Amino acid sequence: MSSPPSSLDELIAALRCLPGVGPKSAQRMAYHLLQRDQRGAARLAGALGHALEVLRHCQRCNNFSEEAVCQRCANPRRDPATLCVVEMPADLAMIEQTQSYNGLYYVLMGRLSPLDGVGPRELGLERLIARATDGEVKEVILATNFTNEGEATAHTVATLLGARGVKVSRISRGVPVGGELEHTDTGTIAQALVERRAF
Amino acid sequence: MSSPPSSLDELIAALRCLPGVGPKSAQRMAYHLLQRDQRGAARLAGALGHALEVLRHCQRCNNFSEEAVCQRCANPRRDPATLCVVEMPADLAMIEQTQSYNGLYYVLMGRLSPLDGVGPRELGLERLIARATDGEVKEVILATNFTNEGEATAHTVATLLGARGVKVSRISRGVPVGGELEHTDTGTIAQALVERRAF
Repeated sequence: MSSPPSSLDELIAALRCLPGVGPKSAQRMAYHLLQRDQRGAARLAGALGHALEVLRHCQRCNNFSEEAVCQRCANPRRDPATLCVVEMPADLAMIEQTQSYNGLYYVLMGRLSPLDGVGPRELGLERLIARATDGEVKEVILATNFTNEGEATAHTVATLLGARGVKVSRISRGVPVGGELEHTDTGTIAQALVERRAF
Repeated sequence: MSSPPSSLDELIAALRCLPGVGPKSAQRMAYHLLQRDQRGAARLAGALGHALEVLRHCQRCNNFSEEAVCQRCANPRRDPATLCVVEMPADLAMIEQTQSYNGLYYVLMGRLSPLDGVGPRELGLERLIARATDGEVKEVILATNFTNEGEATAHTVATLLGARGVKVSRISRGVPVGGELEHTDTGTIAQALVERRAF
């Protein structure tokens, strides 16, 4: 007879769909939104609904887009001969921030992760293959993370594309710019030695 | 020309109104909702809208409620002579879980926090005073946290109610049940000594 209001319960349960939000955080968020920031709550509800309605995936790069082909893919000043493969939109944003890449992208929206049931099919690698073999692309640059899963993804993509005669490269590993050997992990130093370049 | 879609930007910005969510977390949440859990996102948008629409504060206990007077306050089997003052609904839920209290509550929905601009007026202490002096209440039990702000809140409420002749008590401090002195902080042990009881 004295359980909390069902609309509050439902809000707390719904907040738990956010990554990294457990029962305590969800409760705290619900109280905060209802008690301290009702305008923010209304804004969030509206933004969620609007994003769900208008956002889709760019047919070319698979990134989120409000158009069928996103502005970046439609930009004639970008080089259509190089295609950089990244895991997530955040990775694309980091590469864009370097202002050192003018080609196009393909965003996997994830990585191979057999333990989570994400295989080549779930990741939609056949769409990447179709994109990379459409005749325009001359080189595919793999810029997935240097984690186990990112490396496995790069390896799989390289094998699939190599079998189709596409030129594939991988961004380099090594000691970070400004990094001191004393404070770099031994795995990175070992890789930097193996992948040393002529000076 | 190649900025991210505005609806995605707006969703990321809106997610930052959640407590403890910075730019990186907001981005991760937005990608997760759009890429992996669109049903969860729709559910969250709906739950937010519904909660904003139907939830208000109980006229008696100030807790969230869908009715003018919440089910707990309207329950005739609860003792109307004791009023337990807590900071947040989560504190009320913890006390209810003990199944050792059968009185009513008043939820402050916060605590005195001068640095954040929350004084007696912002906390609505005049409503608590009106509730505690309505003739039904015989004892007010202060169950705010034993933090600096919770203690200051308890002190202020006790002073205000004491001046109006209301009997006020404070839940006890001490070594936790099952706690070992060796692993209890010295402040708690000192308080447990000062507040020792006849055996």
